Amino acid sequence: MKGLELFNLIKDDLMTVEKELAKIVKTHDPLLTETSAHLLKAGGKRLRPAFALVAGKTYNYNPQKLIPLAMALELIHMASLVHDDVIDDSYTRRGIPTVKANWGDQVSIYTGTYLFAQSLALIARVGNPTVSRILADISVKMCEGEIQQIVTSYDIRQTVKDYFFRIRRKTALLISASCELGAVACGAPEYHVKALARYGYYLGMAFQITDDILDFTASQRELGKPVGSDLRQGIITLPVIYAMQLATGRDRLIEIIKKKDKKEGEVLEAVNITRKSGAIEKAFDVSDRYLEKAKSQIRYLPPGQATESLGLIADFIGKRKF
Amino acid sequence: MKGLELFNLIKDDLMTVEKELAKIVKTHDPLLTETSAHLLKAGGKRLRPAFALVAGKTYNYNPQKLIPLAMALELIHMASLVHDDVIDDSYTRRGIPTVKANWGDQVSIYTGTYLFAQSLALIARVGNPTVSRILADISVKMCEGEIQQIVTSYDIRQTVKDYFFRIRRKTALLISASCELGAVACGAPEYHVKALARYGYYLGMAFQITDDILDFTASQRELGKPVGSDLRQGIITLPVIYAMQLATGRDRLIEIIKKKDKKEGEVLEAVNITRKSGAIEKAFDVSDRYLEKAKSQIRYLPPGQATESLGLIADFIGKRKF
Repeated sequence: MKGLELFNLIKDDLMTVEKELAKIVKTHDPLLTETSAHLLKAGGKRLRPAFALVAGKTYNYNPQKLIPLAMALELIHMASLVHDDVIDDSYTRRGIPTVKANWGDQVSIYTGTYLFAQSLALIARVGNPTVSRILADISVKMCEGEIQQIVTSYDIRQTVKDYFFRIRRKTALLISASCELGAVACGAPEYHVKALARYGYYLGMAFQITDDILDFTASQRELGKPVGSDLRQGIITLPVIYAMQLATGRDRLIEIIKKKDKKEGEVLEAVNITRKSGAIEKAFDVSDRYLEKAKSQIRYLPPGQATESLGLIADFIGKRKF
Repeated sequence: MKGLELFNLIKDDLMTVEKELAKIVKTHDPLLTETSAHLLKAGGKRLRPAFALVAGKTYNYNPQKLIPLAMALELIHMASLVHDDVIDDSYTRRGIPTVKANWGDQVSIYTGTYLFAQSLALIARVGNPTVSRILADISVKMCEGEIQQIVTSYDIRQTVKDYFFRIRRKTALLISASCELGAVACGAPEYHVKALARYGYYLGMAFQITDDILDFTASQRELGKPVGSDLRQGIITLPVIYAMQLATGRDRLIEIIKKKDKKEGEVLEAVNITRKSGAIEKAFDVSDRYLEKAKSQIRYLPPGQATESLGLIADFIGKRKF
């Protein structure tokens, strides 16, 4: 992420996480090693490891425990991305071909499951039953979120509540766990752990809302994938839900959303209706409210550089352009 | 499995496992609940839970620890079946439509991952790091086996060694872990645990070889799926590897195996060439040798009904018709 300088505090250990990830995905099987290495090289913000490490810095920082945790969090995230790309039929992510694009659906399914299993093998080695339990529970909920996305795709009757249900499971819970478990791994007391869990949850909600907004407002170059790709796949996000309530051209918008085989011009037309409707601004307001809630948790944490960083990260997400 | 009377010793707890599985797959999401319930109702031998329970009976039987373990083992197995059906493009299993057939690939991918995550959530609650670690490691290896199957499909150059590599990962390791962890959960000593792990491993190898033989020798009604389905999908099993070495009609057999779009008559022709080649008998010999090895582990276990059952199960698998 641009603005990674916010994570300066944990830069060295984040590089260790990167190196160790490259090691751990190496296996007997040359193909799984290749697909996993491709995914790692394709980059990503490493947001979840970074949050775990910064959370650890708010207490008695313990890299021996934090680094395997940070790796496990990133592996779960990567696993979900590989499966998502199969489900969403995506051929590029961050401007780079997906595993699906290069190796097909079958290999992608097992690459995802493999990374997930590797993550849990790593966590099992950390040997903290609380960490294992929380991550396994979140993995269950992530699947629920993905299934709900499949079930509700192209369904214009879905509500803001349905949307929140989904992004909570798809994104916010894992970011929340990253902050929470970073503190757990360092032996922080209950109130401290809970404040970080709430911080991560609110921040994760804001992060996903922003992501969904950017699908309408950013350029293809900035996104590393085509604009309006959610819409194209029938995934109805907050800006669209609002636009269906607000927009002049509401009927035309609904007509396009429901079409399974949209023309490129139609996708852009729907993007424009949404942009002009005031829905983007309304969605930004919701995101800002979540960021405020995230920041309000900071008062429960001990003052210092790490705590300050958490505040700055929230500010940064509010200004995120891509 | 016909012959489940061999598992009489643990019948009541096996029924508890069944009931608890039906409970645990219920989730917020109606679709995931439905697909999981469909899978459960489609049946199966519940071989892995049964082995864990019988293994427990060879020591200080502890149902409180064994039942969650048995459930977790079956959930991992079910998860792998759902993903397999997507990969293998299978529409029926045990004579019943697959999740793929009823709900499609997307839903199947998440149903599989969901069951896998549920399994690990259950194990995390058992709170034994050894159990968590062994199951996570085996899940990694199961993915390696599946990937190898994809990579080597239609490839006539694969060897008996490649085949053993694959079935070890696809089948034997989880059956081995079922026996091993059943003993671990009951606090059995190291030599006892290891003997059961080896017993399960050898038995699992024999079980998969027999399964692969039955794909050639059983009827569609017995199999609950079409005869020769491995061959149809390009999966080259032990009987075929031997038939390519032995058979009159070897060239024709190879020609058919390599075809991606086989006619039904061609599949049956290849099945017949294999049947007549002596390969089936040779594969049975290998299976019998594994069963002997399995039985040779029994001397390390305390005498009694449970240990006796393990011997009978090995005999039964040798006579298995479907």
